[in-house]
Amino acid sequence: MRKERLFLYDTTLRDGQQTQGVQFSTDEKTQIAATLDEMGIDHIEGGWPGANPTDSAFFDTKPQLVATFTAFGMTKRAGISAENDDVLAAVMNAGTEAVCLVGKSHDYHVTKALGISLAENTENIAKSIAYLVAQGREALFDAEHFFDGYKANPRYALEAVKAAYQAGARWVVLCDTNGGALPREVYEITKAVIAAGIPGDHLGIHTHNDTEHAVANSLAAVDAGARQIQGTLNGLGERCGNANLTTLIPTLLLKEPYASAYEIGVSLEKLEGLTRASRMLDDILNRVPMRQAAYVGASAFAHKAGLHASAILKDPSTYEHVDPSVVGNERIIPMSNQAGQSNLRKRLGDAGLDVTKGDPALGLILNRIKEAEAKGYSYDTAQASFELLARDALGLSEAFFDVERYRVISERRRNARGATVVESEAVVTVQLPNGEKTTSYYKNNHAEEMSDEGPVNALWQALKSDLGPYQSVIEDVRLVDFKVRITNGGTEAVTRVIIDFEDDQGRRWATVGVSANIVDASFEALLDALNWKLLHDGARVIR
Amino acid sequence: MRKERLFLYDTTLRDGQQTQGVQFSTDEKTQIAATLDEMGIDHIEGGWPGANPTDSAFFDTKPQLVATFTAFGMTKRAGISAENDDVLAAVMNAGTEAVCLVGKSHDYHVTKALGISLAENTENIAKSIAYLVAQGREALFDAEHFFDGYKANPRYALEAVKAAYQAGARWVVLCDTNGGALPREVYEITKAVIAAGIPGDHLGIHTHNDTEHAVANSLAAVDAGARQIQGTLNGLGERCGNANLTTLIPTLLLKEPYASAYEIGVSLEKLEGLTRASRMLDDILNRVPMRQAAYVGASAFAHKAGLHASAILKDPSTYEHVDPSVVGNERIIPMSNQAGQSNLRKRLGDAGLDVTKGDPALGLILNRIKEAEAKGYSYDTAQASFELLARDALGLSEAFFDVERYRVISERRRNARGATVVESEAVVTVQLPNGEKTTSYYKNNHAEEMSDEGPVNALWQALKSDLGPYQSVIEDVRLVDFKVRITNGGTEAVTRVIIDFEDDQGRRWATVGVSANIVDASFEALLDALNWKLLHDGARVIR
Repeated sequence: MRKERLFLYDTTLRDGQQTQGVQFSTDEKTQIAATLDEMGIDHIEGGWPGANPTDSAFFDTKPQLVATFTAFGMTKRAGISAENDDVLAAVMNAGTEAVCLVGKSHDYHVTKALGISLAENTENIAKSIAYLVAQGREALFDAEHFFDGYKANPRYALEAVKAAYQAGARWVVLCDTNGGALPREVYEITKAVIAAGIPGDHLGIHTHNDTEHAVANSLAAVDAGARQIQGTLNGLGERCGNANLTTLIPTLLLKEPYASAYEIGVSLEKLEGLTRASRMLDDILNRVPMRQAAYVGASAFAHKAGLHASAILKDPSTYEHVDPSVVGNERIIPMSNQAGQSNLRKRLGDAGLDVTKGDPALGLILNRIKEAEAKGYSYDTAQASFELLARDALGLSEAFFDVERYRVISERRRNARGATVVESEAVVTVQLPNGEKTTSYYKNNHAEEMSDEGPVNALWQALKSDLGPYQSVIEDVRLVDFKVRITNGGTEAVTRVIIDFEDDQGRRWATVGVSANIVDASFEALLDALNWKLLHDGARVIR
Repeated sequence: MRKERLFLYDTTLRDGQQTQGVQFSTDEKTQIAATLDEMGIDHIEGGWPGANPTDSAFFDTKPQLVATFTAFGMTKRAGISAENDDVLAAVMNAGTEAVCLVGKSHDYHVTKALGISLAENTENIAKSIAYLVAQGREALFDAEHFFDGYKANPRYALEAVKAAYQAGARWVVLCDTNGGALPREVYEITKAVIAAGIPGDHLGIHTHNDTEHAVANSLAAVDAGARQIQGTLNGLGERCGNANLTTLIPTLLLKEPYASAYEIGVSLEKLEGLTRASRMLDDILNRVPMRQAAYVGASAFAHKAGLHASAILKDPSTYEHVDPSVVGNERIIPMSNQAGQSNLRKRLGDAGLDVTKGDPALGLILNRIKEAEAKGYSYDTAQASFELLARDALGLSEAFFDVERYRVISERRRNARGATVVESEAVVTVQLPNGEKTTSYYKNNHAEEMSDEGPVNALWQALKSDLGPYQSVIEDVRLVDFKVRITNGGTEAVTRVIIDFEDDQGRRWATVGVSANIVDASFEALLDALNWKLLHDGARVIR
């Protein structure tokens, strides 16, 4: 069976920029457009030239894309011709192959927001689209509030979109601007538009996620016959976001009935770059990637339940609807108190510890993990602390050194000039197995600039500054991230600290510590990190 | 028309706990269950008694709920009777009114994962459910992988669920365990189950969000006739999460065709607590609430596009599918315009500060808030710190006292008997406006039991132990909760501390502090709390 072509239109750079807190630079727009183009998206909307300076600057760069580069704008205003509308002129002057104009299709918005007659609005649409076509551009019409408009006045909503189609619009895009439509009505109304004379292969769908239906509504429109989907990477967009292309692309390529029925511009090979593309966008936005995101989230293939994890080890298809590698993602089997023994053996294997099935040490390790979790520890991400716990239970741990004492001080005071300063210091005494001791001291030197980094930083600086004969091994350990969570809340608060480290070999490892005293919780995690590094670099215990 | 009853089943405490990184304490489970119960959820699943210690401990508390309290477990194993299955016994021993047992309905899983015959599996289901019923429990059967199972072997999938129904299951729940099903197939297959003889008012739906269809799939099953939805608050759950009740509840109550067709246990009045309930859960998890979340997200009613914002001012219904206040949320329009100032005036009014429209102080306060937010402060919950900031800008603040110096020490050492002890101490010197000074000191007395509460607690104890002439006013201030968030992540980490306080008058207030030094961030918040208390109790500045 020959597949029908389904087109993808990206609006990350325009509607995606309406996300609260998002404002792309020109360079960032260039980088995102290149990623979308590489992926195989059909249309890339660059912004609204003339509406804001960054958008205009981006169009001035004339990006070279395989995709159809598209400028966004609005239909001409009443009372002037398309040729003389300066807002439209700025859009045309961007010189893109395609132009997408938004216009009204909901009668109330025409009379209330625009304050013009329905006939005038229809004429604005028709004249604007005809002008684009006459100028040799591919014309798209975004019918704003189409579904609400159709429910309020179907006759007029259809009149508006038919005016655009008859004037030569290549695509008429039905927009659920408020995000309030549900899949069944999107399906029925899209059917009605096709029945009214606009062929499905000229119809697009543009949805928002205000009821978590942006993806479902897009597919409902496709089910009804629409052949273009507008969306954004990671579902960026006004309010709750637009339809998430990062979810739609793998669904269309991998899931039935779509995989067999439609061909899209993205190949299965390019699909493997999807997770990387999603993370790139979060990097640009300086956002923590959403762990639970469909397909590309760090948790999307994380199997925590013990029953699931043990079945996954027998056959991954038992608990995975698609293979994570096809979207460039990875399977994760975290440790947790739900974990069974097979899950545990897999994780031990990852740490280079092979324990045979039925070994009583497995039960011992599980018990220690459960006890620790009851106190507030979590080993989901703290793989290095997990490994040390397991090694201890297996009798494979090494006692490289012992911290006999630490003392940290944080102080706020007035200096000689009467200015307030905050400073922290720490002293650490380490006992080595050969009987020697080292004592190291750290005091922050930036107290005057109020840039003191606190007691945990002081402790870390002191601890890693003199580990005696081990110093050369731990020299390159860097603390790269620090997370704190208060478990148990209220006055019984217990603090869990998770710290990420890296070294010059590019290794990264995470450790955990728990205590009501945040300094002591951090101390545990710091100690684990150093012990893990010594073990993995094959340090010999000094005797 | 009489509405049909549609039931909501919450699994936040069980499937929600399968979220990577989530592990509730017993207290947290109690708090979440109380919130769900207050909302009007029909079933609250507490966990799997016997499977992990926290779950068992929670069931031991015997929560008093209006909702049907439910224990989760699995069907009996082959080769032993339901009465003699120790895993099932642990579930029954929790003594809940209802019990939900998961079992296989996918032939491949029966033979591959369980390694038993299809007939044995059917018998395990029937015998387990019959046993629950004989023991007087309301019985629910979660048919794992039902949709995949139906696609692979419809005859066996139906045999499995009919066995549960015929054995007396009040609810047979069709589970899309992998999250791979799409709405059309959920609709068709649910229809087929009803046609096969299980009435819709005995059918539930349990979905996952692996293709962003958990909500759409739940509603598709309802469209087909199912009358129970299983979901979680904020869509917590294994991998990409479960169906989000925080989205489903308002959709069912507010949107057609659901609002007219169904009655649920949640009233429109309780719906106004939805945003608060969602934030409470994020607070417990110490997660940043998802801004783009449907209905309850901070951005869900944020209108950034210029065209939208101006239309909203004319008529909010132009760009909002529902009114934000019905879910306890708020409309946000960029602070710079009129609406920003009227929002601010409302919040000042809440703090008893009446500022007239157009007062230049409003612009000053907005600027200070923006500057502070850029540094990491957040005033969403820290109303007391917001009030102090505003009073300062309005020239209404009072300088009750000044902390000239504090010094906190945390130490880990060996005591005289060689045991490791951790202890913290603090000294605080306060300067009063009349020239007097007080110095107070605190040292924890529990170091031997390793129950040291850390430097922040020591600082608080010292600070509140001697405020000179103000001591009688602040005597009853208690610290009731402490939250820490690392903003900015990585090595540039900045710590935001939010602390909740209460007093003998039953007042509660929250303050915020920000610094790279966690002790100093906490100090700011402690100071704000004492100043707020002195202001609100009408203390006179000592001169």
